[in-house]
Amino acid sequence: MIKIAIDAMGGDFGAEPIVAGVIDALKQREFQAYLIGDNNKLKSLIPQEYSRFITFVQADEVFAMDESATDVLKRKESTIYKAVELVRTAECKAVVSAGHSGASMSLATLRLGRLKGISRPAIATLMPTTQNNKKTLVLDVGANVDCKAENLFEFAIMGYAYAKEIMKIDNPRLGLLSNGEEDCKGNEITKDAFDMLKKLDSFIGNVEGNQIFDGSVDVIICDGFVGNILLKTSEGVAGAITKIIKQSVKKSPLAILGAFFMKGVFKGLKNQIDYDEYGGAPLLGVKECVIISHGKSSPKAIKNAIFQALKFSESNINEVISNELTKYDK
Amino acid sequence: MIKIAIDAMGGDFGAEPIVAGVIDALKQREFQAYLIGDNNKLKSLIPQEYSRFITFVQADEVFAMDESATDVLKRKESTIYKAVELVRTAECKAVVSAGHSGASMSLATLRLGRLKGISRPAIATLMPTTQNNKKTLVLDVGANVDCKAENLFEFAIMGYAYAKEIMKIDNPRLGLLSNGEEDCKGNEITKDAFDMLKKLDSFIGNVEGNQIFDGSVDVIICDGFVGNILLKTSEGVAGAITKIIKQSVKKSPLAILGAFFMKGVFKGLKNQIDYDEYGGAPLLGVKECVIISHGKSSPKAIKNAIFQALKFSESNINEVISNELTKYDK
Repeated sequence: MIKIAIDAMGGDFGAEPIVAGVIDALKQREFQAYLIGDNNKLKSLIPQEYSRFITFVQADEVFAMDESATDVLKRKESTIYKAVELVRTAECKAVVSAGHSGASMSLATLRLGRLKGISRPAIATLMPTTQNNKKTLVLDVGANVDCKAENLFEFAIMGYAYAKEIMKIDNPRLGLLSNGEEDCKGNEITKDAFDMLKKLDSFIGNVEGNQIFDGSVDVIICDGFVGNILLKTSEGVAGAITKIIKQSVKKSPLAILGAFFMKGVFKGLKNQIDYDEYGGAPLLGVKECVIISHGKSSPKAIKNAIFQALKFSESNINEVISNELTKYDK
Repeated sequence: MIKIAIDAMGGDFGAEPIVAGVIDALKQREFQAYLIGDNNKLKSLIPQEYSRFITFVQADEVFAMDESATDVLKRKESTIYKAVELVRTAECKAVVSAGHSGASMSLATLRLGRLKGISRPAIATLMPTTQNNKKTLVLDVGANVDCKAENLFEFAIMGYAYAKEIMKIDNPRLGLLSNGEEDCKGNEITKDAFDMLKKLDSFIGNVEGNQIFDGSVDVIICDGFVGNILLKTSEGVAGAITKIIKQSVKKSPLAILGAFFMKGVFKGLKNQIDYDEYGGAPLLGVKECVIISHGKSSPKAIKNAIFQALKFSESNINEVISNELTKYDK
């Protein structure tokens, strides 16, 4: 049984949604959940019939969201530190945390270590498209705000491996996010990256922001500054549209009835664009599997983050990244 | 009567939608429209009762979308060149073009000239928010892909002036687009820009992508690379949501009925987020008024672009920009 280390207390809402997500995941498949946190508290949340799938690991501290990421290296009694340590010592195969994401990255990079040839790990996230069951992987979405062309090249290799090994796409299409599709478009850094990416058979060239959602490309490469902005912009647009519709429906009894008839449509839409469907973002380029979840994760998000960790653990993604890197003489 | 030079043939769909937009604008208010293009063609499109508001200016060539922007300087017989020339010679107060946007920028910068103290003009665009009648101005959205901190500072001054003079906001709130709200967030360039922007009373600090749409800030500053990506990402999300809803409605008769009852809601939403409601983006930082419209502009977009040109021409925005710049010792 695969063993997954779960930072059970690092999120914004404490242990409850995390443990509920673990139980929901266990209802769908078997794995061994290492829950790191206040054992008394955690034990009270586990129904008897699931206790054989749980290993409790005591940790007395929670690393707070407003602390400086690198300070986590000194916080050996914190839930996130102990969770990563379980992976470093090979007790567990993967770690899932909804805690301080900078702290998770620091621990992953410095305690687990980077893959050979990767200078900067990146956070990858799946974005919904208009094509059913088709997602677009975007990286980096926040680990590295200032990138060089070489970093973007590495992101491409990592994204390719993820698409192939985890998303099971035979010939993933890689695109470089730019301000136009033409080869000549881009800023100084993406233009340099374009020249490096041309070596990759999977590279289809520059892509534009709207292509994230149309399914025309499988992996989109950008720096973490742009990636963070596009993620929040996307959430903002989706949230604004929902809000405008809700405000406007309220004003008309006929529209209220219409919205009732369209309930299934809106529910389907919500599922299709819902962050909880992915639940977490893998940190690519480190030696083990680290899944970073949102601090405000729901049980559903945690459940899906665990499924991501399981898929990752069962794959050969890190081998594929290493093999691909040796193919290309940067 | 304010005279507006209109590149009547530069858009993707030829003269028809442009002229239709001009007529629609004339139905709402009086101005003198200088239509630049093939006069025989254009005359045939003008209803008799509007002819007294039209001045025809013959131009034999159209500068094509796939030509290199700077080549336009040699194309003195092109519609866009002649349109800008009418402003340069002070015959007209403003120019509206749905033609090659790079060519419009080159002509504006090199023939009309930059405002004193502005090293890079920027394209500004209005974005919808969830608050009725409240828009957010975003700049730059494409004129400058590589920016220095000084450029972002100038964009802030120009955006402030636009918000005050055109949007009529008494105390505009300026935000710097970043990967987090905290002061410490940003890439190398935005961090430097942050330090410069602190001098401005109107500066509220870093803002995130979702704040474009919530009405919490009036002007958002970014470089043209990020601005272009966020614009296309926003269009992409809105388009994807519309498509998912449409696809899903089709599958259920009840939902079709519901959508019928919600027709007013969807129409209102469309109006609120529709690009055509703004119709064009002003190029800020040049000595006169240049409104850049999308090549695929509808008559409605052209009409609203003309209204933008009229508002701009009646304002003191360029004076305000110059005054504000002298206030701050960069």
